[in-house]
Amino acid sequence: MEHLKNLDEIVGTVCREMQAHLGHGRVADYIPALAKIDPRHFGIAIAIQPEREAEEVAIFAAGDAEVPFSVQSISKVFTLTMALEKLGGALWKRVGKEPSGSPFNSIVQLENERGIPRNPLINAGALVVTDALLAGGDPAQLIAGILDFIRGLAHDPAVTIDPEVATSEGDTGFRNASLANFLRAFGNIENNIQDVLEVYFHQCALRMNCRQLARAGLYLAHGGVDPGSAARVTSVQRTRRINALMMTCGHYDASGDFAFRVGLSGKSGVGGGILAIAPRRASIAVWSPGLNAWGNSHVGVLALEKLSSLAGWSVF
Amino acid sequence: MEHLKNLDEIVGTVCREMQAHLGHGRVADYIPALAKIDPRHFGIAIAIQPEREAEEVAIFAAGDAEVPFSVQSISKVFTLTMALEKLGGALWKRVGKEPSGSPFNSIVQLENERGIPRNPLINAGALVVTDALLAGGDPAQLIAGILDFIRGLAHDPAVTIDPEVATSEGDTGFRNASLANFLRAFGNIENNIQDVLEVYFHQCALRMNCRQLARAGLYLAHGGVDPGSAARVTSVQRTRRINALMMTCGHYDASGDFAFRVGLSGKSGVGGGILAIAPRRASIAVWSPGLNAWGNSHVGVLALEKLSSLAGWSVF
Amino acid sequence: MEHLKNLDEIVGTVCREMQAHLGHGRVADYIPALAKIDPRHFGIAIAIQPEREAEEVAIFAAGDAEVPFSVQSISKVFTLTMALEKLGGALWKRVGKEPSGSPFNSIVQLENERGIPRNPLINAGALVVTDALLAGGDPAQLIAGILDFIRGLAHDPAVTIDPEVATSEGDTGFRNASLANFLRAFGNIENNIQDVLEVYFHQCALRMNCRQLARAGLYLAHGGVDPGSAARVTSVQRTRRINALMMTCGHYDASGDFAFRVGLSGKSGVGGGILAIAPRRASIAVWSPGLNAWGNSHVGVLALEKLSSLAGWSVF
Amino acid sequence: MEHLKNLDEIVGTVCREMQAHLGHGRVADYIPALAKIDPRHFGIAIAIQPEREAEEVAIFAAGDAEVPFSVQSISKVFTLTMALEKLGGALWKRVGKEPSGSPFNSIVQLENERGIPRNPLINAGALVVTDALLAGGDPAQLIAGILDFIRGLAHDPAVTIDPEVATSEGDTGFRNASLANFLRAFGNIENNIQDVLEVYFHQCALRMNCRQLARAGLYLAHGGVDPGSAARVTSVQRTRRINALMMTCGHYDASGDFAFRVGLSGKSGVGGGILAIAPRRASIAVWSPGLNAWGNSHVGVLALEKLSSLAGWSVF
Repeated sequence: MEHLKNLDEIVGTVCREMQAHLGHGRVADYIPALAKIDPRHFGIAIAIQPEREAEEVAIFAAGDAEVPFSVQSISKVFTLTMALEKLGGALWKRVGKEPSGSPFNSIVQLENERGIPRNPLINAGALVVTDALLAGGDPAQLIAGILDFIRGLAHDPAVTIDPEVATSEGDTGFRNASLANFLRAFGNIENNIQDVLEVYFHQCALRMNCRQLARAGLYLAHGGVDPGSAARVTSVQRTRRINALMMTCGHYDASGDFAFRVGLSGKSGVGGGILAIAPRRASIAVWSPGLNAWGNSHVGVLALEKLSSLAGWSVF
Repeated sequence: MEHLKNLDEIVGTVCREMQAHLGHGRVADYIPALAKIDPRHFGIAIAIQPEREAEEVAIFAAGDAEVPFSVQSISKVFTLTMALEKLGGALWKRVGKEPSGSPFNSIVQLENERGIPRNPLINAGALVVTDALLAGGDPAQLIAGILDFIRGLAHDPAVTIDPEVATSEGDTGFRNASLANFLRAFGNIENNIQDVLEVYFHQCALRMNCRQLARAGLYLAHGGVDPGSAARVTSVQRTRRINALMMTCGHYDASGDFAFRVGLSGKSGVGGGILAIAPRRASIAVWSPGLNAWGNSHVGVLALEKLSSLAGWSVF
Repeated sequence: MEHLKNLDEIVGTVCREMQAHLGHGRVADYIPALAKIDPRHFGIAIAIQPEREAEEVAIFAAGDAEVPFSVQSISKVFTLTMALEKLGGALWKRVGKEPSGSPFNSIVQLENERGIPRNPLINAGALVVTDALLAGGDPAQLIAGILDFIRGLAHDPAVTIDPEVATSEGDTGFRNASLANFLRAFGNIENNIQDVLEVYFHQCALRMNCRQLARAGLYLAHGGVDPGSAARVTSVQRTRRINALMMTCGHYDASGDFAFRVGLSGKSGVGGGILAIAPRRASIAVWSPGLNAWGNSHVGVLALEKLSSLAGWSVF
Repeated sequence: MEHLKNLDEIVGTVCREMQAHLGHGRVADYIPALAKIDPRHFGIAIAIQPEREAEEVAIFAAGDAEVPFSVQSISKVFTLTMALEKLGGALWKRVGKEPSGSPFNSIVQLENERGIPRNPLINAGALVVTDALLAGGDPAQLIAGILDFIRGLAHDPAVTIDPEVATSEGDTGFRNASLANFLRAFGNIENNIQDVLEVYFHQCALRMNCRQLARAGLYLAHGGVDPGSAARVTSVQRTRRINALMMTCGHYDASGDFAFRVGLSGKSGVGGGILAIAPRRASIAVWSPGLNAWGNSHVGVLALEKLSSLAGWSVF
């Protein structure tokens, strides 16, 4: 098929062009287990709906697409999906839908807005989502449930959680503990704080490669249905809403810039990964550990900008 | 044609369903000339590319689609287009691309970020855009140029500027004067402040009806080309970027909510109008003067949510 | 002696005049153990240096001056004194000397100013002071040390720590845990967070009456020397600096108002107590549990305003 | 008299010791007329109440005490006095009494607090004070009235307003215009903005030397009465309140530090001058144009710290 052959060329082109940019940016160093990664990695994978029902999902990959990395904040997209399935619209009483504007504001906004985080894709919001999922249950069981959910979406039991990353301490740990206590003071964390943090640190420590991640996100490109198994993961409307949130809030304070340059919904993580969704077309995962000033993968954003341009996938 | 007949039904359905919601929200009262408007107006118009080259642009309208209103901040989309054509990428040295997060932050952000407004769709950013367009020229001439540009896009010389609104004073006037002086202190306004404000107040006072506005925005749905005249207004890339900015920043602090509910790029004005773009499909204008708590048309947003759902136009 | 007879009259007058104001204000309700207090209490005590060396410190008291209450933030003055004796000027590398401006800013400022709290009399600053005092030691031992220090200053072994208040949870507990984790993320808490919080909650739970509190503060009115025992508690210069901090930062966001109305250095606590210092003259404690909108004792401030006026003790 | 001879020595000592510090700090450069000043100037003058009624006020001076400089924000103390005499307590409905916390907050606070500036000694507050004094009157007449008031206090008709400084533009001018427009949007400027700014720029451009300034402030050290003429300038209570405001708000974001180090009420100006009040003792003026990071005279603060220590004048 023309367009599939075409995609093979596109991922190859993107991968080749990115080589010149590797090594820029800075690897996240506040989690010791992440600081050791070589910043010159680059991987890309595109998952595409099969042409005919019986066919398999096609995955076009290049570079280090098989090398697992820490997905970190990208996991927020999957726990948000789980929470929406569990709580429905009631979740929006506890978390907003707006971009947060600037990093230093997040905790001010939290105070001004009485403990309601701006959106579920910033740390404060994701802690509330995790708390909503925990709901009095056992942290270990919820961690297992999240892992199962993502293994199912990735169609790969090899997805794991990195215990070293999960127990890494440092600034991030204390900042998240600070946020969780702050939310609790407003009554917007209901479970034991240590339990919520334990789940949260484990979901951030999910270890996936680009192939697995692109495959796991494919339901977001197809109205909530996993095109491989035909299983409905979430409703059409919720899928649109998750994509909208990824567009307006998925790249911290550079969400506007990502929309401007790439024109796709996306969610980045400080491990250097980005999951991007081209609705009705494809789910894309890129990975390169060097981060730009906003904490997003420097080469990852460049690669998606190139890909979106070559494939003509901008939603705008 | 099937889908056109369909659109006629859709605008009718939307218009009927909105009747029950009219009268909610509050008309902007800080501009005396706007405070007199009956909040129970509702108009909608959809401009669609002709099927064949020789045909005319089709416009589907209902309600008060012929009643002119004050476009206010919607004009920022058109002056941004003009400024990008005039300055190109250099404009982005003077204004950012990120959502501003919250209204009260805008002036703080301006100070923190050394006089660089967050984006060109908030007042501070639009003042910089206007200043860039003025560039030492004559205010009256620039006002005439903006009016000409929009009349051309609307294919209607009946578009006017309301002199009463343009010279309205009050809070808004003083706040904008405050912003302009602040920007000037950082060197990000280069012309005489009174001249910049004069142009700005006149562009905000543009008076259009839904038909004219939908028609004027059609180039944004078609890669920068006006499908009626085949004239290129701006490049494909700039069109995408303007649409991206409208998606992430077009509804003040409710931009995330608009993306979440409607799934289209849009720009609202305190006159109660909204211009929404469904890329590769249509340009839509709605108008209803009652505003919600975020300063966007209460019924306008509802109408676009309904329309987007009925037509299946969400980009997500 | 004339002026002592006079003081007896003054405390009587103040106490009588305050009766009409009792019951206004709201008892702090976020600590359950404090919420039960009757807001209609009022006590006042003034401790004065003896005329001759052999004489005892004179205490003039009225109302509920013998009823113990929770001193809460007033304890910050005493732990600051201890920390200055222990660390000297090095403490000022970890905490500032400026008023914080507004409550909601405190955590923003903390972020902007890289984990350096504005001053030692707000919660964030007092947590740093407590951390500096702990310095790797045993929390129980430090709690005992603080209690001993204050019993010594009060010349009264009956000063206690209320275990119920110390273990009270609720909003305050979570907010302080949030602050402590935030400070730790910046490296400005060095000990185990639970240990720091344990000491902090116990120092806040000190239970004293007006007599004891006025007596304990007398060194601040006398250049750092306890006039009863002639023991030097801290240097002249440090005494002046503690008094200066109490003047500019001792009443949260109403510190300016307190200086304006009372003209004395003072520190309030949410238990309804205030310690005020008239340099070279007297140490004054007032207590009335109803708080004003800024968290300071409504009647306590009124009483000090009256007292300062009657005694002519304003430093201005 | 012993203590007067002593003061002669003290000003000499302070002046000698300051020589080593001259040249540090940076002259304010945003007003062209100020940028030309040699930063190595230092002047000091202390005005003291006469021992006996018939005697003249004694002034002890050293260094460049006769060299006139631009008093800038120090003028806010005198216009505040005038406004309190004119409006009484009603002024406090339009301006607060609290330190502002941090410079970048001032305009946020202004928005949060609905156009009520934090205190009358920051620019926003002083603009409101000037507006209150103008009250529909003629700007030129008010400028003349302010000049007369200060000449009377200084007992010297040679005090002038520097027309070059008054008409200097630049950042400051635009920032103040921004603030004035912002206040007007909230209805807290009532006169024509240009008129208010004209008066404000002229009061800031007052030109005095240390002798004149120390003499002019002497009423603040003596309960509101000018000890030379026995004329009451303002009431005892208002005097205390002005002194309290100078203590908590007189040095921008370093007000706490000034109280901590010097222990006196004081007001600084970007011209490098500081007026300090030792209640019931003296009025002191120092001048040295090099500013520290907070916009206060670097050597001026050092000199007052030394003087306060040598003379034992700290109020704490």
